[in-house]
Amino acid sequence: MSSDDHTVDRELSDDDENVHHVWDNSLDPVATVEPGDVVRFECRDALDGQVGRDGTVDDLVNVDLDPVHPLTGPVYVEGAEPGDVLAVELLDFEHKGWGYTGFLPGEMGLGLLPDDFDEGGLHVWGFDGDTAAFVDGIEIPLDPFPGIIGTAPGEAGEHDTLPPRDTGGNVDVKHMTEGSTVYLPVEVEGALFSTGDCHAAQGDGEVSVTGVEAPMFVTARFDVLTDKSIEQPEVETTGPFTPTGADEPMYATTGIADDLMDATKKAVRHMITHLESERGLTRGEAYILCSVAVDLKVSQVVDAPNWTVTAYLPESIFP
Amino acid sequence: MSSDDHTVDRELSDDDENVHHVWDNSLDPVATVEPGDVVRFECRDALDGQVGRDGTVDDLVNVDLDPVHPLTGPVYVEGAEPGDVLAVELLDFEHKGWGYTGFLPGEMGLGLLPDDFDEGGLHVWGFDGDTAAFVDGIEIPLDPFPGIIGTAPGEAGEHDTLPPRDTGGNVDVKHMTEGSTVYLPVEVEGALFSTGDCHAAQGDGEVSVTGVEAPMFVTARFDVLTDKSIEQPEVETTGPFTPTGADEPMYATTGIADDLMDATKKAVRHMITHLESERGLTRGEAYILCSVAVDLKVSQVVDAPNWTVTAYLPESIFP
Repeated sequence: MSSDDHTVDRELSDDDENVHHVWDNSLDPVATVEPGDVVRFECRDALDGQVGRDGTVDDLVNVDLDPVHPLTGPVYVEGAEPGDVLAVELLDFEHKGWGYTGFLPGEMGLGLLPDDFDEGGLHVWGFDGDTAAFVDGIEIPLDPFPGIIGTAPGEAGEHDTLPPRDTGGNVDVKHMTEGSTVYLPVEVEGALFSTGDCHAAQGDGEVSVTGVEAPMFVTARFDVLTDKSIEQPEVETTGPFTPTGADEPMYATTGIADDLMDATKKAVRHMITHLESERGLTRGEAYILCSVAVDLKVSQVVDAPNWTVTAYLPESIFP
Repeated sequence: MSSDDHTVDRELSDDDENVHHVWDNSLDPVATVEPGDVVRFECRDALDGQVGRDGTVDDLVNVDLDPVHPLTGPVYVEGAEPGDVLAVELLDFEHKGWGYTGFLPGEMGLGLLPDDFDEGGLHVWGFDGDTAAFVDGIEIPLDPFPGIIGTAPGEAGEHDTLPPRDTGGNVDVKHMTEGSTVYLPVEVEGALFSTGDCHAAQGDGEVSVTGVEAPMFVTARFDVLTDKSIEQPEVETTGPFTPTGADEPMYATTGIADDLMDATKKAVRHMITHLESERGLTRGEAYILCSVAVDLKVSQVVDAPNWTVTAYLPESIFP
């Protein structure tokens, strides 16, 4: 899975001394690198090992959210100054053969549709090459990326890792795949880069609040751009934009509402109903499948007062 | 541009007797067809001819919004009853060789970014096969679809054509391309189908409130499904999901905010800045290009309190 011949200049294991759980620009760097250097990060899964290869839904439901998210770093990049841009070329991802996707009981308030699911659900995936098997012969394609990729915020103090912010973090942009270059605003000297929360696959939206969560190695090359200025992360990518990398049949549901979040919820609810009625999945299975393989697009945001969000399901994942 | 050998059973011109400007289930049908019949609709452009092939920005800025949108129909489909689904197979689109895209002065309050543009702007496109030329050698691919496609609302009275609703209408789903099948809820006897507001191209989002607006012929086959039930429109489509129909380089900007519409605005503003600084476009040209060739995806809606919307620009449109 390597897009580029490269020599790794620095390896960072996922041992405690290289892992932090909040964004904080006062953290000591675990490595200092030069522009052009390649670093291989070992990254723990989002829940820091609490759901394992043999994990159960009870493990997920009883999860301790304090250690979320374990991030590997921070890495100090020589020459990076506030106002610069850190370019991060994603060279290679190596998963460890498994991952999991789930949803939490609605009372915990996480995910797009907490009101729809009283109880939690979990699927543990074994990876077979570039795919992973779900129920009923469904196979989803794996396109790994880091859910969290960012630099340290300029604002002092500890910052939660759940929300993304101007310096990136938990952006969950599924197209930050191998071969992509991610551009991150620099707010502190040395940029203080960290990554983690890797997903072996995810649908646009990540609606159940989990992609295919997977411990993984991430190999990246750093550069500092002093002549570029951005407000929030940007990325160059070649996708894949469909599972097969080419036009293929999709089934789409629309969500139409006068609030963009409501339109998003409707599109996903309609897709869950479609998966239940046409494909025989339970609603929980459908919610998980939406989170890892269904893409949300903003079709229009101008036909006031109602907006259209559309959810796209690739038919190629079915047997 | 035909995906299917078909015989047209009924032709509807865009003469006044076949055109209406509001949704209203008391309108007399202009045609009655059987399931399986193919109808060819001639559709006027969204502004009902007020901006022509030689149109200027003054024509656009002084537009009378009353005739927006002229729709061809309604067509009564035999056997369609409330609760059924009307299946509309989109067989063929034929444009008339030209179209236009613009934005209105901010004070008119239309489009995603009215606060950013005091004055209006317009580009009239001549079509060359499957592409159309913009400024600086930029060529955008044409993938025609009907911006408006719908059945009559069950609620009595006149309904504005601008917002989409449960029965469809101005959904602006760009992937309702040739070969797609659109499923529409039926709320009245005969369904009372109409279409119009065709776009020769559009980005997901249609951010300037215009796609490539183009008068066009739409050929569709109707079917009535009594064993399917949907709340809002759904569609089967094979895209294209990228301009070339395959994975290709894209430049993406993120918008991160605690409101999904604000995140959408940020993503588009960042793309406009990118097009200005890296590609030398004016902000007005960039706004138009975003509206016709940049796609908006909902990357995540679960990392509270901040959401991520991402705008994707295909690099292949540049010379």
